[in-house]
Amino acid sequence: MIVKKRKVIIDCDPGHDDAVAIMVALANPQYFDILGITTVAGNQTLDKVTKNVLKMFDYLGVRGIPVSAGYSDPLLRPVQTAGFVHGDSGMDGPVLPEPVSTTTGLHAIEFMRKTIEQCDEKVTLIPLGPLTNIGLFLKTYPHLKEKIECIALMGGSIYGGNILAKAEFNIFQDPDCAKIVFDSGLPIIMAPTECCDEGGVLFSEQEEFKKGGKVSRFAYDLFEYYGRYCAKNGWDRVVIYDMTPIIYLMKPELFETQQLRVDIETDGKYCRGCTVCDFRGGAHVEKCEDPKTVLTHVNREAFVQVLFDALKYLDEKYG
Amino acid sequence: MIVKKRKVIIDCDPGHDDAVAIMVALANPQYFDILGITTVAGNQTLDKVTKNVLKMFDYLGVRGIPVSAGYSDPLLRPVQTAGFVHGDSGMDGPVLPEPVSTTTGLHAIEFMRKTIEQCDEKVTLIPLGPLTNIGLFLKTYPHLKEKIECIALMGGSIYGGNILAKAEFNIFQDPDCAKIVFDSGLPIIMAPTECCDEGGVLFSEQEEFKKGGKVSRFAYDLFEYYGRYCAKNGWDRVVIYDMTPIIYLMKPELFETQQLRVDIETDGKYCRGCTVCDFRGGAHVEKCEDPKTVLTHVNREAFVQVLFDALKYLDEKYG
Amino acid sequence: MIVKKRKVIIDCDPGHDDAVAIMVALANPQYFDILGITTVAGNQTLDKVTKNVLKMFDYLGVRGIPVSAGYSDPLLRPVQTAGFVHGDSGMDGPVLPEPVSTTTGLHAIEFMRKTIEQCDEKVTLIPLGPLTNIGLFLKTYPHLKEKIECIALMGGSIYGGNILAKAEFNIFQDPDCAKIVFDSGLPIIMAPTECCDEGGVLFSEQEEFKKGGKVSRFAYDLFEYYGRYCAKNGWDRVVIYDMTPIIYLMKPELFETQQLRVDIETDGKYCRGCTVCDFRGGAHVEKCEDPKTVLTHVNREAFVQVLFDALKYLDEKYG
Amino acid sequence: MIVKKRKVIIDCDPGHDDAVAIMVALANPQYFDILGITTVAGNQTLDKVTKNVLKMFDYLGVRGIPVSAGYSDPLLRPVQTAGFVHGDSGMDGPVLPEPVSTTTGLHAIEFMRKTIEQCDEKVTLIPLGPLTNIGLFLKTYPHLKEKIECIALMGGSIYGGNILAKAEFNIFQDPDCAKIVFDSGLPIIMAPTECCDEGGVLFSEQEEFKKGGKVSRFAYDLFEYYGRYCAKNGWDRVVIYDMTPIIYLMKPELFETQQLRVDIETDGKYCRGCTVCDFRGGAHVEKCEDPKTVLTHVNREAFVQVLFDALKYLDEKYG
Repeated sequence: MIVKKRKVIIDCDPGHDDAVAIMVALANPQYFDILGITTVAGNQTLDKVTKNVLKMFDYLGVRGIPVSAGYSDPLLRPVQTAGFVHGDSGMDGPVLPEPVSTTTGLHAIEFMRKTIEQCDEKVTLIPLGPLTNIGLFLKTYPHLKEKIECIALMGGSIYGGNILAKAEFNIFQDPDCAKIVFDSGLPIIMAPTECCDEGGVLFSEQEEFKKGGKVSRFAYDLFEYYGRYCAKNGWDRVVIYDMTPIIYLMKPELFETQQLRVDIETDGKYCRGCTVCDFRGGAHVEKCEDPKTVLTHVNREAFVQVLFDALKYLDEKYG
Repeated sequence: MIVKKRKVIIDCDPGHDDAVAIMVALANPQYFDILGITTVAGNQTLDKVTKNVLKMFDYLGVRGIPVSAGYSDPLLRPVQTAGFVHGDSGMDGPVLPEPVSTTTGLHAIEFMRKTIEQCDEKVTLIPLGPLTNIGLFLKTYPHLKEKIECIALMGGSIYGGNILAKAEFNIFQDPDCAKIVFDSGLPIIMAPTECCDEGGVLFSEQEEFKKGGKVSRFAYDLFEYYGRYCAKNGWDRVVIYDMTPIIYLMKPELFETQQLRVDIETDGKYCRGCTVCDFRGGAHVEKCEDPKTVLTHVNREAFVQVLFDALKYLDEKYG
Repeated sequence: MIVKKRKVIIDCDPGHDDAVAIMVALANPQYFDILGITTVAGNQTLDKVTKNVLKMFDYLGVRGIPVSAGYSDPLLRPVQTAGFVHGDSGMDGPVLPEPVSTTTGLHAIEFMRKTIEQCDEKVTLIPLGPLTNIGLFLKTYPHLKEKIECIALMGGSIYGGNILAKAEFNIFQDPDCAKIVFDSGLPIIMAPTECCDEGGVLFSEQEEFKKGGKVSRFAYDLFEYYGRYCAKNGWDRVVIYDMTPIIYLMKPELFETQQLRVDIETDGKYCRGCTVCDFRGGAHVEKCEDPKTVLTHVNREAFVQVLFDALKYLDEKYG
Repeated sequence: MIVKKRKVIIDCDPGHDDAVAIMVALANPQYFDILGITTVAGNQTLDKVTKNVLKMFDYLGVRGIPVSAGYSDPLLRPVQTAGFVHGDSGMDGPVLPEPVSTTTGLHAIEFMRKTIEQCDEKVTLIPLGPLTNIGLFLKTYPHLKEKIECIALMGGSIYGGNILAKAEFNIFQDPDCAKIVFDSGLPIIMAPTECCDEGGVLFSEQEEFKKGGKVSRFAYDLFEYYGRYCAKNGWDRVVIYDMTPIIYLMKPELFETQQLRVDIETDGKYCRGCTVCDFRGGAHVEKCEDPKTVLTHVNREAFVQVLFDALKYLDEKYG
């Protein structure tokens, strides 16, 4: 299978797994031409997650990828950050100096408008946090939908949830914008918790990072902090949720997928933010005209190998 | 394992599977002392499902079990019957004469009050339809909770649904009364669709009923009609949902169960009626003080054998 | 205008104004044949308001009017009592001994069923508290609607509210049961806060009660306590809300009314419990097929005279 | 009272009354420096209302006021236009040629950002339609709140409604964005239907416009068409809702106002879009920290005189 190189915008809230996901994308220029990073409140406040991108880029020595901050709160409610997972900075663990580089000064949705308008081909959006920026971009500039190739996102779950019994953190934060995105008519690739869980890095594998170069050791510090949360949950691995859509875009052959109707529940005490995946068939269920590509399973060994290769590449490039 | 004989009230909306479930209970007097049948709108209107119980009892020759009709609509919305499954009568297939016997004339919740007040031991409630009667009984006579042994119900689902992608028919009909029941503090045994599906009768097995006596042939007619719906759905078996809690009360050793927090979602376009089963653990999820017994798996062969034995028994007793 | 004598059931949550309203009804046997009193949680808990009726009947020497307790909480949420208005007992002020008489032991809705079934004419329901009893009575025994003459209730408001900016206390407590009542198709007479406010007793008038007999002095103690709340609100009068529907049934000629569409809002943070009175006309508003009689204005002097006459009558009868 | 000259952006959905309101603003350059017009779906679709502004400016000969189109639908639901009031074009009546001038090409919220950023003083926003543009502008660029003087809007009602019994058209269209605006902490002046109704132009007064110049005759055509709707409703006058906040900013002395807590109800079948004005006082209502200025009454004669003067001025300037 030949996978073409894509123009992408990564929308994120780093977040340990966002940071790792961005590194995998940086390490694969044959697949990704990163037009920009946009940030959104989620794992931590907007200020913190934006600073985390800039810090990381400064540390790695990444140049030329514009960073633009977006919404500081979900559409209808205040953000509920995940400091209990990602720490006070949103990316606790590695100790990095204050950033020297700065954002574009443009709001994320204005940056997306300009960049997508000017791009000579269709752009793939990769949202790794709450869908506030993406939803309000599509709401504000609906004529640019035709310039979107697809939206490959980390979010939702098939059967259960994490922040609620039936809702995953990213979608729960802003179900209203998630609904705008899922109802947009654009091709959606959804990496749910169940598939992400399968692709975890074993605690034993993480130890290898210590022996690598500057980037691997940075990754080690991320894994080490974030892994404590995973261990507390009783897991045997570090689940780097946000890598999943990135790696799917590179190597779809590693995944099993299903074409499913997916609706976003925006109401309810227990189900607000549920990604309602419809597995029903039979005589009484109408056919879905706009199914989403839901990632259901992944080949773990091959999946984490992409990460290992990425760190090696970055150690050489930026080390 | 010694399972004691229970005083039970079966609350139902026959419905093919309700009828079969009642027959299994009738065939096992060592387990069940049936104090009465109460009926509720669900699979069909209240009038029709009540008539179905009376017709069946007349046909079989069952005497001495009082039948009382309850609510003709769920608490807050009109009933949405399932004629597409159970036909216009709610129990299409067998052709039975109009009933000669009659109901008690008491409303289901008044019948339950009197019966439970007068009973010298605790009573087990077995709801096989929407939870309107049970919910409003508990709401109206909360002091009688102490006379309830447990509530073993068919309803809900663990991961998906049938009437909605995330809601099962019985709970969807009346989520508000379901919430009253699930929040009552009483011991709840929930037989969800997933477990019921496992216990289906193979189409080949159903053919055997034709060779039996009067009761088996009645069962055959029920299976034959209802099986067409199952076949249309692409299933390989006839799923007699409502047998599941009955057989669990007889032979719990045939089942795998989990103790789970279960909340009822009463709002939302896509999740109203969802039985939110919480499988989460980990550091950030608080312990459930009032878990429900959720039936997760069943030994199919042993399960359907209970039905085969019941029909044989009834053929002898009533044939 | 000749107003016929009515068979009535008064459903209440005393409450100072409930107590006064009941006294007005007791004083007018030519208008009211009181078949029974039913109680419901509202101004205080069910136990307290039930005890208040019994205490008052014992004190006055009222015999032969059965009292039946109903629901201890609204349909879907716990009761939020109004201790800040009515005190800890729900009827603070007069000091009465513990009751000697007892309730019927029947649940309010069973009492209503029996009484209405046995009554040889239609019965008028007079709800003075949250509509839980009345709503669930109609839900449980819909065939008895044909034996209901009308429902004359204190509840709702036309423009504003008291417990919320857009909701009145009684309807706010149980909007779901209020919706059942308002959507029942029965004739509804609604006494909203605005009309009740007009009918207040001036602080100066209340002083007269002191000079009366046993009943008047009891009324004085009620007014004195409850009047403190009214004074705190900056009012110039004591508003005995619950007298309004009673007096309307006696002397409709004292009132201005409008026939209006009234819907009950059951959702919303700010409007749950709003009685949505529709004053719109014009080309684009459809005609209401089931308007309610909304009391809009009252002749205050004539209205309070009914109370003064009642106290005088009771002083003579029970003094 | 000296009223200062304001820099304003008028956000509108013409609409007959929007058009008249804009004309009043154009006629009073001593009060208004119009930085731009932004349009939003409401009375008609975005395309139509945008074209209506351009057509009117072309017809009148207005130059130099930029027009920018905004959102084509409310935040969460599709627009429900008011063709039954304003006709198929949204401004039926006057026959105007297709527009020659064009919009800025910028989205309304980008236009507002640029304009407000560049403005050397605070800007007053005057929304005359649904609050989608204003709400999402504030959501997207919250740092620019400090450059907003106040928001003077036509919308809401105090006691009743028009599109619903408890909701006014503009707020009903987009209660979610209205909530963002009302909760923004900015000074809000709200011109509700009740005050607008008082300021209507009598049918007899409208006849005078026929005798005027080009602009007056254009106004006459607007009034004549729109007046038919008013007459059908049984009114004795033409209610030019959208003039009200414009004229308040010029001549506040013509108005009575109240400082009130106003919440926006975003849920509910009957009250979605209700502007919940809180008139309650008393011991149990907490003080509002962020009251709105609600226009409650207006001196009609002086109010409509402003319109008459405006038309005369414009007849001279553009005639």
